[in-house]
Amino acid sequence: MTTIALDAMGGDHAPRAEVEGAILAARSLDVRILLVGAEGALRQELDRHKHRDLPIQIVNATEVVTMNDSPSHAFRRKKDSSLHVAARLVHDGSAEAMVSAGNTGAVMTVARFVIGTLSSVDRPALAWTFPNMKEKVSVILDVGANVDSKPEHLEQFAVMGEIYYRAIWGIRRPRVALLSIGEEETKGNELTREAANRLKHTSLNFTGNIEGRDMFRGNVEVIVCDGFIGNIALKLSEGLAEHLGGMLKKSIKSSLTSQLGYALSKRAFDDFRKRTDYSEYGGAPLLGVRGITIIGHGRSNANAIKNAIRVAAELCHSRVNEKIEQELSSAAAIAARG
Amino acid sequence: MTTIALDAMGGDHAPRAEVEGAILAARSLDVRILLVGAEGALRQELDRHKHRDLPIQIVNATEVVTMNDSPSHAFRRKKDSSLHVAARLVHDGSAEAMVSAGNTGAVMTVARFVIGTLSSVDRPALAWTFPNMKEKVSVILDVGANVDSKPEHLEQFAVMGEIYYRAIWGIRRPRVALLSIGEEETKGNELTREAANRLKHTSLNFTGNIEGRDMFRGNVEVIVCDGFIGNIALKLSEGLAEHLGGMLKKSIKSSLTSQLGYALSKRAFDDFRKRTDYSEYGGAPLLGVRGITIIGHGRSNANAIKNAIRVAAELCHSRVNEKIEQELSSAAAIAARG
Repeated sequence: MTTIALDAMGGDHAPRAEVEGAILAARSLDVRILLVGAEGALRQELDRHKHRDLPIQIVNATEVVTMNDSPSHAFRRKKDSSLHVAARLVHDGSAEAMVSAGNTGAVMTVARFVIGTLSSVDRPALAWTFPNMKEKVSVILDVGANVDSKPEHLEQFAVMGEIYYRAIWGIRRPRVALLSIGEEETKGNELTREAANRLKHTSLNFTGNIEGRDMFRGNVEVIVCDGFIGNIALKLSEGLAEHLGGMLKKSIKSSLTSQLGYALSKRAFDDFRKRTDYSEYGGAPLLGVRGITIIGHGRSNANAIKNAIRVAAELCHSRVNEKIEQELSSAAAIAARG
Repeated sequence: MTTIALDAMGGDHAPRAEVEGAILAARSLDVRILLVGAEGALRQELDRHKHRDLPIQIVNATEVVTMNDSPSHAFRRKKDSSLHVAARLVHDGSAEAMVSAGNTGAVMTVARFVIGTLSSVDRPALAWTFPNMKEKVSVILDVGANVDSKPEHLEQFAVMGEIYYRAIWGIRRPRVALLSIGEEETKGNELTREAANRLKHTSLNFTGNIEGRDMFRGNVEVIVCDGFIGNIALKLSEGLAEHLGGMLKKSIKSSLTSQLGYALSKRAFDDFRKRTDYSEYGGAPLLGVRGITIIGHGRSNANAIKNAIRVAAELCHSRVNEKIEQELSSAAAIAARG
């Protein structure tokens, strides 16, 4: 049984969504959950459900990190926050993984400095999972704002992304590509050209560059980029999806016939919403931290929390961190031998 | 009357769409058009329309740049291509502007090296126009793959973007922002932090950083970024719009009721398509070239070509290049005085 520390005060709908998610997870998965946060509030939420036989335990924390706290403030000044306490449980070995739908920057900083980084990893990377045109999923990393990355960082992202993809989706040799501005090797900026050159000499199934247009095509499983680009790509995608949805709604509202049509095709729109629903994908792992860390979307509902817990447990099970250390240290050994 | 050299062999639907676009433009705008390309084919296309009284003239060119030609091949080896000849007409002063829906990289290279760059501009920048949530348009530049830009390049992009926006949409002080990974000044990478510092000290209406999510909100008119980011942002947006459209179609096709609903709301979908139709926006200007250059989408239809010609004429009229030279040289003078 895997023990997961859940920051129960993190998301927009905390602690209700977190507690419900924990209950769903404890009922359906082989996990034990440490629910971290304000004891009274958590007890009250728990008591809304049948939970006596479930392996859920409350761990008290007196502070809460908000969306307005800077990462450094959250790390330095809120040491009894639910986030900090959850990270310490992982650091101490009381839990194998941590899940939080809180302030992304704060979770990254606290995870990195409280739990620590794997010895062969320079910078932990945040991996975003999204549905592609082949009705499968692709993963892009880093979306967590590791700016001004060096080629060796992109290589580490590629290795971590590949191991993550294999662990969760069971593809033995996922295809790995660099996000760039043209498919040809000569295209790109200084960073991607050097990174491509490094990636060609790894044992990864590296297929070269892909363009922004091809990100959703599903011709590759793992897409690697600097965190500045990745963060813009992620947020731009969210913003554009919302924008297009809004425009379509306006067009539909413009006539009665259209509204009737919409009512009839409502099932299609629900189906569409489900296809694009992030909550199925279980949050974004922060890869490279010495203990599995999953960051959920701020708007996480109970289902999203449950899926984040599921992904955390799967990553523990498949010993992702051991594999990352092995791969990266053997790659470093090869590089040192030159 | 403004004279425009039109590369009539450039786009996916050339020369038919180009010739039709030229005719639409010549009928409705105060322009004279030099239709550049294979004389026989162009004559034949022209003869499908009433064109005797229209100010359209064919200029023969024996070669065609294809989508597979590298920019340097197009520039060095195809000197009698319709693209090259059109650029030379601008360079010689026989035309004030050039329009092409051909190979973007080739158009940029040929325009830059045949027509030349404005004396105060280091790198011409490609500006993409898109509809925002406020039902207005925003412009982002550079999307033309000026990689590894320096802060001073981003400053030049900002000045050119502002002048362009004012010329076409008549806003006196368009708001200018930097695309970055957080709104705070401390967020971003080395490039954007330095560029923000420079932009604060210009006379531009600079409002700071915006995130990828806010690109479509319409809170700013001009968005500035390195060409690697901009190119990925543009292509990712195209790819995602296609992807979401495809998923919605699949969902609609999944039941008969949905299909009936779709049929009833078809007008809404047409309206939506019109709202997002790039062909209304008339192509992307390559700002900073010594002669107006407009690059159309490869898939340009006649309407898109006509609108590209319209934008070219408007930019000539409002003396955009003179204004860019003035602004940038006075900015340089201020910087030199320190």
